[in-house]
Amino acid sequence: MSETTLTILASSIGNQIFVRLKGGKEFRGRLKSYDQHLNIVLEDAEELRQNGEPKKHGLILIRGDSIVLISPVPKS
Amino acid sequence: MSETTLTILASSIGNQIFVRLKGGKEFRGRLKSYDQHLNIVLEDAEELRQNGEPKKHGLILIRGDSIVLISPVPKS
Amino acid sequence: MSETTLTILASSIGNQIFVRLKGGKEFRGRLKSYDQHLNIVLEDAEELRQNGEPKKHGLILIRGDSIVLISPVPKS
Amino acid sequence: MSETTLTILASSIGNQIFVRLKGGKEFRGRLKSYDQHLNIVLEDAEELRQNGEPKKHGLILIRGDSIVLISPVPKS
Amino acid sequence: MSETTLTILASSIGNQIFVRLKGGKEFRGRLKSYDQHLNIVLEDAEELRQNGEPKKHGLILIRGDSIVLISPVPKS
Amino acid sequence: MSETTLTILASSIGNQIFVRLKGGKEFRGRLKSYDQHLNIVLEDAEELRQNGEPKKHGLILIRGDSIVLISPVPKS
Amino acid sequence: MSETTLTILASSIGNQIFVRLKGGKEFRGRLKSYDQHLNIVLEDAEELRQNGEPKKHGLILIRGDSIVLISPVPKS
Repeated sequence: MSETTLTILASSIGNQIFVRLKGGKEFRGRLKSYDQHLNIVLEDAEELRQNGEPKKHGLILIRGDSIVLISPVPKS
Repeated sequence: MSETTLTILASSIGNQIFVRLKGGKEFRGRLKSYDQHLNIVLEDAEELRQNGEPKKHGLILIRGDSIVLISPVPKS
Repeated sequence: MSETTLTILASSIGNQIFVRLKGGKEFRGRLKSYDQHLNIVLEDAEELRQNGEPKKHGLILIRGDSIVLISPVPKS
Repeated sequence: MSETTLTILASSIGNQIFVRLKGGKEFRGRLKSYDQHLNIVLEDAEELRQNGEPKKHGLILIRGDSIVLISPVPKS
Repeated sequence: MSETTLTILASSIGNQIFVRLKGGKEFRGRLKSYDQHLNIVLEDAEELRQNGEPKKHGLILIRGDSIVLISPVPKS
Repeated sequence: MSETTLTILASSIGNQIFVRLKGGKEFRGRLKSYDQHLNIVLEDAEELRQNGEPKKHGLILIRGDSIVLISPVPKS
Repeated sequence: MSETTLTILASSIGNQIFVRLKGGKEFRGRLKSYDQHLNIVLEDAEELRQNGEPKKHGLILIRGDSIVLISPVPKS
């Protein structure tokens, strides 16, 4: 295993990531920091909504144990 | 990782933060203290409600494992 | 962090506190003791009910991992 | 904290206690033993029911992590 | 505490026990072994059903963290 | 306790076992390996379905903390 | 136990795997890395949907404690 699972986070610092939580809530924001529990801090975070505009949260700390998946957002 | 996830809390001591719990309850209050389990103490805490006035709680201790996300409230 | 999260409990020994559990049950009683797992013992505990009189429990031990939040009840 | 949370159990050995589980099931019985995980053993245990007679279980071991609260039953 | 909670299991080896799981499923069988996580192995295990005949499972290993309560079945 | 709970798995390597998960899903397959967390690997695994044919999965790794019970399938 | 449960992952690096999460969501992608918590990173990941086209996610990190089962996809 030449690459650890957290490498995906290390290489996403400063970039947009997508996060899905247990229960289905989804967030997008710029990854500012993370730790080994998968707690993450996002800047300019937005909560995506089924219908309508995303809700803006600014800076948020998401607890790792609420997270189901994390995905880097491709730069367009 | 030059900045830990808890820095966001350290720099919010004495300031308003927003907290969302598992199940969707939301609180706002002045961060008085926290620990590494993400247990937090809020002063002048209010529980936000879908409809109507927030419910005032005063000083509250919220268990870390109930917390989904924490966000500093921008000073206006 | 000059003050730990548990200070709120240490300074509430002998005083009324309010406790909300996962699932929404709420209790009130005089804090007799607590430990680092947030297990707490209340004297003269009452279970608050949506409609009607609180249910009296006397002395109760509540497991910490059932607790969402704890709040000292202001002395009136 | 001159008294630990488990003191309430130590002083209830041989006496009736009331136990409420996650999900709301309730039991009553004579406390025979307990451990630091809050696993408890009850003698002459009964499961209380909303309607009708309690269900008799005899000797039971209840896992601590199923327990929400424990209360000594006052001697009448 | 002169007797540990697991004593009830130690003295039930080879005897019928009743087990209730989270979610309410119930099993009965002869206790073959257990460990400190409360994982248990039953022989001639049956799953009790609200209506109708028990379902026969033979030998089963039940994970401790699925278990709510265990009770020795009195010899008749 | 002359026999540990995991003995039932050790002696089932290469044989058919039945596995029930939290939520009720059921699988059957040949036990290839397991570990102390009760993570298990099944070969020629099938997911049993209430109605109709089992769904074939081939080789699967099931996380231990999803498992409720494991039972060796008697050789017929 | 000549083969550990994680061997199935080690030998799947670079190959397609299928992952089912708690709650029933299903993903497919090329396994890039994993760790001992069963956190996994998938490349070219797709989320399978009951009806219609899979949703493309690209690179994703899935938290181990959300995972129920993992299965290598046979090469066709």
